[in-house]
Amino acid sequence: MNHEERNRLLTGMVTCRRDIHAHPEPGWMEYRTASLVAARLSALGYEVATGEQAIRSEARMGVPDAATLRFHEEKALREGVDPFWLERMKGGHTAVVGVLRGLKPGPVIALRFDMDCVEIGESDAPDHLPCQLGFSSNRSGLMHACGHDGHVAIGLGVAEMIAGRRSELAGEVRLLFQPAEEGCRGAKAMVEVGWLDGADYFLCGHIGLKSRILGEIVASVDGFLSTTKIDAMFRGKEAHAGNSPELGSNALLAACTAALHLHGISRHSEGATRVNVGMLEGGSGRNVIPGEARMKLELRGETEALNEYMARETSRILASAASMYGVSCEWETVGRGISAEGDRSLIPMIEQECAGMDTVVSFVPSIPFGASEDATFMLRKVQEQGGRGVYMLFGSPLAAGHHQSSFDFDERVLGIAAELIVRLVFACRNGAAVSDPAMHTNSKE
Amino acid sequence: MNHEERNRLLTGMVTCRRDIHAHPEPGWMEYRTASLVAARLSALGYEVATGEQAIRSEARMGVPDAATLRFHEEKALREGVDPFWLERMKGGHTAVVGVLRGLKPGPVIALRFDMDCVEIGESDAPDHLPCQLGFSSNRSGLMHACGHDGHVAIGLGVAEMIAGRRSELAGEVRLLFQPAEEGCRGAKAMVEVGWLDGADYFLCGHIGLKSRILGEIVASVDGFLSTTKIDAMFRGKEAHAGNSPELGSNALLAACTAALHLHGISRHSEGATRVNVGMLEGGSGRNVIPGEARMKLELRGETEALNEYMARETSRILASAASMYGVSCEWETVGRGISAEGDRSLIPMIEQECAGMDTVVSFVPSIPFGASEDATFMLRKVQEQGGRGVYMLFGSPLAAGHHQSSFDFDERVLGIAAELIVRLVFACRNGAAVSDPAMHTNSKE
Amino acid sequence: MNHEERNRLLTGMVTCRRDIHAHPEPGWMEYRTASLVAARLSALGYEVATGEQAIRSEARMGVPDAATLRFHEEKALREGVDPFWLERMKGGHTAVVGVLRGLKPGPVIALRFDMDCVEIGESDAPDHLPCQLGFSSNRSGLMHACGHDGHVAIGLGVAEMIAGRRSELAGEVRLLFQPAEEGCRGAKAMVEVGWLDGADYFLCGHIGLKSRILGEIVASVDGFLSTTKIDAMFRGKEAHAGNSPELGSNALLAACTAALHLHGISRHSEGATRVNVGMLEGGSGRNVIPGEARMKLELRGETEALNEYMARETSRILASAASMYGVSCEWETVGRGISAEGDRSLIPMIEQECAGMDTVVSFVPSIPFGASEDATFMLRKVQEQGGRGVYMLFGSPLAAGHHQSSFDFDERVLGIAAELIVRLVFACRNGAAVSDPAMHTNSKE
Amino acid sequence: MNHEERNRLLTGMVTCRRDIHAHPEPGWMEYRTASLVAARLSALGYEVATGEQAIRSEARMGVPDAATLRFHEEKALREGVDPFWLERMKGGHTAVVGVLRGLKPGPVIALRFDMDCVEIGESDAPDHLPCQLGFSSNRSGLMHACGHDGHVAIGLGVAEMIAGRRSELAGEVRLLFQPAEEGCRGAKAMVEVGWLDGADYFLCGHIGLKSRILGEIVASVDGFLSTTKIDAMFRGKEAHAGNSPELGSNALLAACTAALHLHGISRHSEGATRVNVGMLEGGSGRNVIPGEARMKLELRGETEALNEYMARETSRILASAASMYGVSCEWETVGRGISAEGDRSLIPMIEQECAGMDTVVSFVPSIPFGASEDATFMLRKVQEQGGRGVYMLFGSPLAAGHHQSSFDFDERVLGIAAELIVRLVFACRNGAAVSDPAMHTNSKE
Repeated sequence: MNHEERNRLLTGMVTCRRDIHAHPEPGWMEYRTASLVAARLSALGYEVATGEQAIRSEARMGVPDAATLRFHEEKALREGVDPFWLERMKGGHTAVVGVLRGLKPGPVIALRFDMDCVEIGESDAPDHLPCQLGFSSNRSGLMHACGHDGHVAIGLGVAEMIAGRRSELAGEVRLLFQPAEEGCRGAKAMVEVGWLDGADYFLCGHIGLKSRILGEIVASVDGFLSTTKIDAMFRGKEAHAGNSPELGSNALLAACTAALHLHGISRHSEGATRVNVGMLEGGSGRNVIPGEARMKLELRGETEALNEYMARETSRILASAASMYGVSCEWETVGRGISAEGDRSLIPMIEQECAGMDTVVSFVPSIPFGASEDATFMLRKVQEQGGRGVYMLFGSPLAAGHHQSSFDFDERVLGIAAELIVRLVFACRNGAAVSDPAMHTNSKE
Repeated sequence: MNHEERNRLLTGMVTCRRDIHAHPEPGWMEYRTASLVAARLSALGYEVATGEQAIRSEARMGVPDAATLRFHEEKALREGVDPFWLERMKGGHTAVVGVLRGLKPGPVIALRFDMDCVEIGESDAPDHLPCQLGFSSNRSGLMHACGHDGHVAIGLGVAEMIAGRRSELAGEVRLLFQPAEEGCRGAKAMVEVGWLDGADYFLCGHIGLKSRILGEIVASVDGFLSTTKIDAMFRGKEAHAGNSPELGSNALLAACTAALHLHGISRHSEGATRVNVGMLEGGSGRNVIPGEARMKLELRGETEALNEYMARETSRILASAASMYGVSCEWETVGRGISAEGDRSLIPMIEQECAGMDTVVSFVPSIPFGASEDATFMLRKVQEQGGRGVYMLFGSPLAAGHHQSSFDFDERVLGIAAELIVRLVFACRNGAAVSDPAMHTNSKE
Repeated sequence: MNHEERNRLLTGMVTCRRDIHAHPEPGWMEYRTASLVAARLSALGYEVATGEQAIRSEARMGVPDAATLRFHEEKALREGVDPFWLERMKGGHTAVVGVLRGLKPGPVIALRFDMDCVEIGESDAPDHLPCQLGFSSNRSGLMHACGHDGHVAIGLGVAEMIAGRRSELAGEVRLLFQPAEEGCRGAKAMVEVGWLDGADYFLCGHIGLKSRILGEIVASVDGFLSTTKIDAMFRGKEAHAGNSPELGSNALLAACTAALHLHGISRHSEGATRVNVGMLEGGSGRNVIPGEARMKLELRGETEALNEYMARETSRILASAASMYGVSCEWETVGRGISAEGDRSLIPMIEQECAGMDTVVSFVPSIPFGASEDATFMLRKVQEQGGRGVYMLFGSPLAAGHHQSSFDFDERVLGIAAELIVRLVFACRNGAAVSDPAMHTNSKE
Repeated sequence: MNHEERNRLLTGMVTCRRDIHAHPEPGWMEYRTASLVAARLSALGYEVATGEQAIRSEARMGVPDAATLRFHEEKALREGVDPFWLERMKGGHTAVVGVLRGLKPGPVIALRFDMDCVEIGESDAPDHLPCQLGFSSNRSGLMHACGHDGHVAIGLGVAEMIAGRRSELAGEVRLLFQPAEEGCRGAKAMVEVGWLDGADYFLCGHIGLKSRILGEIVASVDGFLSTTKIDAMFRGKEAHAGNSPELGSNALLAACTAALHLHGISRHSEGATRVNVGMLEGGSGRNVIPGEARMKLELRGETEALNEYMARETSRILASAASMYGVSCEWETVGRGISAEGDRSLIPMIEQECAGMDTVVSFVPSIPFGASEDATFMLRKVQEQGGRGVYMLFGSPLAAGHHQSSFDFDERVLGIAAELIVRLVFACRNGAAVSDPAMHTNSKE
């Protein structure tokens, strides 16, 4: 790719990223973003699957209620989103898959890009670049503060570049644009439709995180924690706190009790675990025994078994805290990520491709993560059927950390990431990745 | 008062009540209501005090922040509120006092009516009368669910009737229209300006509560609990709950701890106490160690000393819960009510006036209350200087309990209450109230 | 009674009290004391019932295990207790009843004296009178620190005086020497045998408490709190706290949780309640997840219903705290007292008899109590069948409060109390008590 | 060593072990055991240091109060312990060091054997071997349930064997008989006197633990957790729980609060941590607000920094829990162990010596531990000055786990352990240990 072509592509990706940044959409309601992606992939010649073809409805987690979905669907319509795509996605089926088949046989390569924003208001500080340049969020309380706007732009850039080299393509490329990564809600439901079936390679990555230098590439992030996200609702009975406190059943104190005891779950000798009650709210009026309380929490474990241990303890604690105050507690799993490790055998191939890019200034073979991602469902699925995959980091300085209101990245990372992914797609095609054939006997090459 | 006159007055009060019901305003932001009251009193010939003449600025509790006040001031302007009055009330000084002096010397009689709404959304059920008749709240999340709309209507009805009998008036009548009764925030600040100074009688009342029969009058509510309302804010440090939980300082767990231990404050052998954490919320994201949590709570005691005991314990618990988690906690008193008892020596006079009203079908001398009201500051002030007072109930069936979204009362209670108050005002004038002169040597009569 | 006679009796009571003081016996193990009482009553001509004739075995609460009972039985034997009585009392049946019937018909009068000591070590301070005079407890960890040694002495003094006036006696006198008053464990089981059946009067009293002046008599203590005493045992699973903490089920944390939440049971609008976890212990070694924890607690309520409310809440909390930590919890009621009020109609009779005693210097008709006693089962039983009763206080200065290691009283109170009781017995006989015949139509007089 | 000699030595060790087993002594009160050791070492020709020559008085942790020490000293006297040694050890200075110097220069080798028993009652089950053979504990509540009786026997066996080969000895052997290993209380204070100064090798081991096969040797236990043992005392104010609960300051609830929150200390991203409140007790009587509560707890961390983190959190929590209830809390460190790793470079030497012993049937180079030991202070001290050391396991089947009342081991392990240690002592002397000279440049060889 020559300099000029690179510039043109980068310009396109930047424009795309800024448009998406200005219109952040939370998980399962990425109607505008997904429609835009679907239309673009279609225009580039990809076979496009969306709606329930792209995601299994019942396997989705943490889907908002119908009214909220409808509100965002109507908003999308008002904003001019193409009803053709919108109709297919209604009800929170905002996944999009684009498939491009090469002329020759070759490996199946799955790429994943996430699309949802974060529920946080964007900074309006004058020195916040999106404000300066006029592309900051136009939706109060919503912001692309985790870089998924960039991921979508990278995905579409990659789509364009691969389409441009279709004649060289062997095998099949699947671009998975996933909704609801925040809270680990969407990946599993795409896996369950079968979009990773038969995939030989899985490539995925994230802007920033622990890689804060422009031009740095981390080939493989390891040590994803298995995680379960839970929403719990305590329901008791209100009563006047002065006249007749004994008639109430205090849902708020039940929730507080649960929170404290959850953080007291015993450490486990077999490895690291985590628990966090990230949000809790309850009560209606100062002089009313609280009749309701809600809690958002997450559990993690270094292994599936450890996460399971945390989940078992949590169930018992939620139920017991409720019964302590004579209230009910209902909870549901609204997100899941599993533990996973990237395939180290892919690192040499990535290093080699990086070596060919003058924009890459630093290469890190692998780093531990200590957090969770639901791309692990895809990675694990591919590995289980004999394929290989990695979760990369695309380095960029950040104006502020992820999920903060002044978050921003250096847009030049978009070009670097897209180019690297395209190189890897074609490197996989050429068999360069198969450094140890014994590890990958399933390959169609 | 003849039947026709009664009907005319009642019609006026009903119209007034419905107008106010449709425009509910929360405490310290009753700009529209108070302007309407001030204009009306003025038109009826009352000397009108408002703004800082009616309420001591620094003695107000639980005043919203400047931006919220401004928002409601602008809204009032847009709704056509007279800038003359609005200007005087700006910054949350929404008290109004109307004074009418008789031609002859006589007692000083203070009457109190509260004006604020409740922060609750009104029912939109078709069988909810305000919906049927088209006067339900036009402001989402706000509703006159405690009958203060009726109190204002009664107050203006009383104002009109007394003005109509000015020639008979001896002494002085002071109509106190109080902001911010909800949360016990406004009365003390009106007392501190001096509006109860020299008052010989204090009359006050409430629609409904424990009196649910139309035509029932409770002459004196007793056993008001002393109360303190507190807002507490815990501030810690956020951290990623997966990567580095140990870097956080968990403000939410501190708040939960405080809530549990507040409810565990030891019972007191000298009488009843109460504590309620009515609202608690904290945390930002599921995967973030919560950096902030807020709590609204209230304390009560049968006596001032018991309420003080609860307050001392609360201070220690809030501070200790914060230090337990290495976070800070700031709290402030946002409301206060004191314990008080009505003057039983006034009951015979009230019974006598009720006997003269064919609309009164049931008379109850006194009942215990078990809740709190800040009218007690006014009642206590009058008693301290040798005067007497009562807090009455004006019976009415209710569509739903107070502070519930389907709350509604029988509007005929407005006429009954207004007539009774006017009768009492003139009865006091005639000295009928002074059943035991030894108890009231300070009287100016 | 002349001065000399009084002196002789007092000397006897003092000797008796000191002997018992030196040999304190805890509840259900008063083998020596009860044998001594039984022998004495028998010698004075009373019909004596003891063992299961005096107390219903299954109705006893908080009885120690068989080994402990046996240990005390053997100790009693070694100390020379008459095997005749001991044999009858074995297994913790240490109640004694002495009955004396008059020659003429008349009322049935029940008197109650409690016999057990407190589980507290006695002070060995040189200025502690029992040390000075050489009659301090010879049993480590046990002490008559609540004056029951005095009560037994009074009871035997009364027995002697009545026996001496047998010819004057009409009706029947029943002297109930009750075991296990501490913890409210013994009275109910004596009632269940029927010893209060048909009783017209019930007289009972306590040295000291709120009456600290020698010569003061309080005629009626009121406001006994209903109470339930509970022992709870949590059983979990031990595990090495370093190697495998997750394998344990933490019984100690369950108990701590229960303790905190018990103290947080909501206040009740209908009256005073109390809860106290008076003792808690758990765990085996520092590095072992605690597998067991024990808790002693008590509940109280101004009424039976309030005490029931506390008991219901307690059951739920104990069960929930256990399930919170995956441990079991078993609990049993080891003591019960009920609420009761003395009969005010007896006060004039008591006042009159006091007036006749130059040793009585102060008379208090009644005072509220705010604590619990199981004599209330007897009082209530008598009242239910139309009889009347009181719980008196016999004033005395105290060297230290009840249940403290330096507790001691002025022994002159023994003579005053005994004389008053005897006077009342004969006053009842003479019908003097029946001040209001309408209140007592059941009387056999 | 021939078979006969082996048998003779084993018989002696068994006799010694059984004698010590029958007379268990808790930490700092091993007067009988230590006297016996001192006498024996002296008889074998060792220079013996004891009392404050062997242990630094102020550096000892968790020393019982003077009365308890005196009680055990008197008991030892009564049991015939030689007053010569006892006098030197009084006040809890029960460490003994025996030094034997070779005729030629050579390395300094320190060996450590611990002597204290566990505070647990020994099983009296007929199938418990010490009962069958008549050497079970003659002290109620005390038992050698961790094998230290065996360690002492091994130590004396080693002492005898080395003394028997004195002519071959080069350098210096120091036998450290340590008191108070349970609770990690004694090692540091021996280090501080200087007994590890200049040591080139440190050899130590334990019977059983994770090695349950007779004839198995684990050359190096790794991953000792750093630990801090803390005793905390809460002091509040008692009050009658019925009459005046508000006058109390509840020390028990403060302790319960501390326990719950200690278990809720946030997990740390840098490694494993542990916390356990192993014992808690508080309160005096059921109807008394508890005025005192005691707590024994321990903290652990994979590294010193992690243990420090736990200690910081603990300090804050203890102080905050106390202030929550208006009580005081004092706490002290009563034990400390540090993290440490054995020197892997010694493993080949150990393997080689094991290979020469037909009694060794299984060799394990190293295993992780996950618990704590204060021998780590000695190991670390030696390593800091350039020396090397290991903590071995001497395999044995166990009748029940360590610290259980039926604990017992196969006495044949005594012979195997002693022989291995002696072989290692002479192997070190011969320089066999220095497999990698670069790692041990400080060596005096």
